[in-house]
Amino acid sequence: VTNWHHPQFHAYYPTANTFPSILADMLSDAIGCIGFSWIASPACTELETVMMDWLAKALGLPDHFLFPAGGGSGGSGGGGVIQGSASEATLVIFLSARNLAIQRLQAQQPEAQQQPSLALSRLVAYASDQSHSSVERAAMLAFVQLRKLPTDGKRSLRGDTLARAVAEDRARGLEPILLITTLGTTNSCAFDNLAELGEVCQSEGLWCHVDAAYAGASLICPEYRHIANGIELADSFNFNPGKWLQITFDCSALWLKDSSKVVDTFNVDPLYLQHEFSGQVPDYRIWFVLRSYGIEGLQSYIRKHIRLAKQFEELVTADDRFEIVEEVVFGLGANAPSRELYRCIREDGRIHLIASEFEASDTFFIRFAVCSEFCEAADIRYAYDVISELANEVLSKK
Amino acid sequence: VTNWHHPQFHAYYPTANTFPSILADMLSDAIGCIGFSWIASPACTELETVMMDWLAKALGLPDHFLFPAGGGSGGSGGGGVIQGSASEATLVIFLSARNLAIQRLQAQQPEAQQQPSLALSRLVAYASDQSHSSVERAAMLAFVQLRKLPTDGKRSLRGDTLARAVAEDRARGLEPILLITTLGTTNSCAFDNLAELGEVCQSEGLWCHVDAAYAGASLICPEYRHIANGIELADSFNFNPGKWLQITFDCSALWLKDSSKVVDTFNVDPLYLQHEFSGQVPDYRIWFVLRSYGIEGLQSYIRKHIRLAKQFEELVTADDRFEIVEEVVFGLGANAPSRELYRCIREDGRIHLIASEFEASDTFFIRFAVCSEFCEAADIRYAYDVISELANEVLSKK
Repeated sequence: VTNWHHPQFHAYYPTANTFPSILADMLSDAIGCIGFSWIASPACTELETVMMDWLAKALGLPDHFLFPAGGGSGGSGGGGVIQGSASEATLVIFLSARNLAIQRLQAQQPEAQQQPSLALSRLVAYASDQSHSSVERAAMLAFVQLRKLPTDGKRSLRGDTLARAVAEDRARGLEPILLITTLGTTNSCAFDNLAELGEVCQSEGLWCHVDAAYAGASLICPEYRHIANGIELADSFNFNPGKWLQITFDCSALWLKDSSKVVDTFNVDPLYLQHEFSGQVPDYRIWFVLRSYGIEGLQSYIRKHIRLAKQFEELVTADDRFEIVEEVVFGLGANAPSRELYRCIREDGRIHLIASEFEASDTFFIRFAVCSEFCEAADIRYAYDVISELANEVLSKK
Repeated sequence: VTNWHHPQFHAYYPTANTFPSILADMLSDAIGCIGFSWIASPACTELETVMMDWLAKALGLPDHFLFPAGGGSGGSGGGGVIQGSASEATLVIFLSARNLAIQRLQAQQPEAQQQPSLALSRLVAYASDQSHSSVERAAMLAFVQLRKLPTDGKRSLRGDTLARAVAEDRARGLEPILLITTLGTTNSCAFDNLAELGEVCQSEGLWCHVDAAYAGASLICPEYRHIANGIELADSFNFNPGKWLQITFDCSALWLKDSSKVVDTFNVDPLYLQHEFSGQVPDYRIWFVLRSYGIEGLQSYIRKHIRLAKQFEELVTADDRFEIVEEVVFGLGANAPSRELYRCIREDGRIHLIASEFEASDTFFIRFAVCSEFCEAADIRYAYDVISELANEVLSKK
């Protein structure tokens, strides 16, 4: 098992399998919450509704993502739902945006009514060239063209790039429907310019979805909310509490401004399942963790990890054998080493990291992430010492 | 929480949250198995591979569903993978069959190459009119036409019905690609005639998928394997160990004769995720349960439930106020009452059942399922007494 709950695990993201989260999972198992519909587990479904509102408020999300007052699911207002992963959330958004667009085209054009697949062939969605591979897969599965747009020097997708692409595609007779923005890319934790992109989406009638799978957790600290400037322009927002908020895998929180757009896409309503979409897996895990740590406890956890990432940056910056390839914003610092060093680190096994690359500039780099709840300054120092020792070996062989 | 782990829960299916399964879930949480790729948790992924082979052998599935000897995932041979639910498994099959068909059409016809959505518009899939609502949803999401075919007097889809539909659709210029057969429908536990259907699929080149979500567990008893006659003709097979095999929700086992057909559909291969499809959620739950109960323990569990269902059938048959609407094959017995009786049972709350209907004959009925591990003859008698008492009240008001 490589996803250690251990201070020397710096690869993907914290596998935050905390005691409250484990305890909550046991409870869910013990009382047999299966929650595939409201009627199967009313208490679980209602708890999920309440929890998603708590969580939205903790992150400072716009009010339109909350359930309507007196609420419950199934209405046409906002609301959140738990998915297994950010990949699932992206797929749900793609399928919903596609169905919505086809309904619109069918209402406008009689030929689209007769041949929905002709309408389908005209749809196009956008994402940055730094977006996660699951965006490409979701487009493929939804049978919607995806255009990956180039990013600026900080690997951020900008509004004018999107506006140009939309204009080009409309001129070619295509129908732009959706933008997936990323806050905190998997590669290097880069941030799209949501404020600019949100405005383009609004004026062009595109669904604006925000994938903040990893970095979204930081919104629990008011001082990091600037990364999500423009969030009030988004139609949907997703982050994974399982990545950096002490909840066990798998858990991905998805909010919608208009939940009926998703419900209509997935709903089939047989007598034996009355509220198909409402349930999913209920989440006592979020409840236990929020109750045990409190908002302040989770804020100091996020702040500590960012402090530790900065400490690692200082160590690496002071060592002229290494280069920081990306500005350290959050826990995902990065450096620029050789493939050989990476091979040695993997083989050595004392610490666990993964590598990535920027394709445009052909840059291979090793990613360093602060993951474990138990990671301290001494562990950062230890990780640096291991890397330094192995770098010495690699360089001495040359 | 309505999905009780309780002898008086007779609604959906056993929420088999056994102690071994709960313990296994704790272990998974504690060691932080997240398993989104082989490299993230090699041990978990390898265990899943081994487990799926064990489980296939326990059910007596054909050898072509096993991983190749010396195996591992990612090859082009057979193999199994765990999904969250049967609905997910059906969607995976729809998307894979669709992509395969489009690749084939593109290889044959240059115009399909240029306009894949034209090829898409010609695809058609089949299922019986008794199939689960998730089949309709999967077709909708995959953007593939679905024809629901009529069933015989026992609500079983027959080979000649399929053969006629395929011939008609080919004459209309359509491209038949997939059949979803059901072994144990949700409504009334009816069985499609897999032996006949499998032959039609083979001669017509259709993907034959078997959805045995609930009833598949019974294959662990050799005396019930006749329900799956023809399984050697299937391309894929799915059942939910979480429904009747003492594993906690959510867990659905999917086997493929040629796993590359699915891997190719879902694979996007960035540097940071090397074996995207291989992992999913690892399953210590299956491992613990198989180790704790043993095959014989699970066999006697299945046999006991079927015995209890027969006991209920006898009680109801002896009472001329009730009618059995479907032959009792497994734990899902059925009776023919009024909506009023159903309303009373729900309001009363001592036992939990659900209702369903056969649309073609406009028959509303109440489903009685044997669910809990702790259900005994006395509980069946108790459930009958409650129903009988409430039926008296309903009838006396008339």
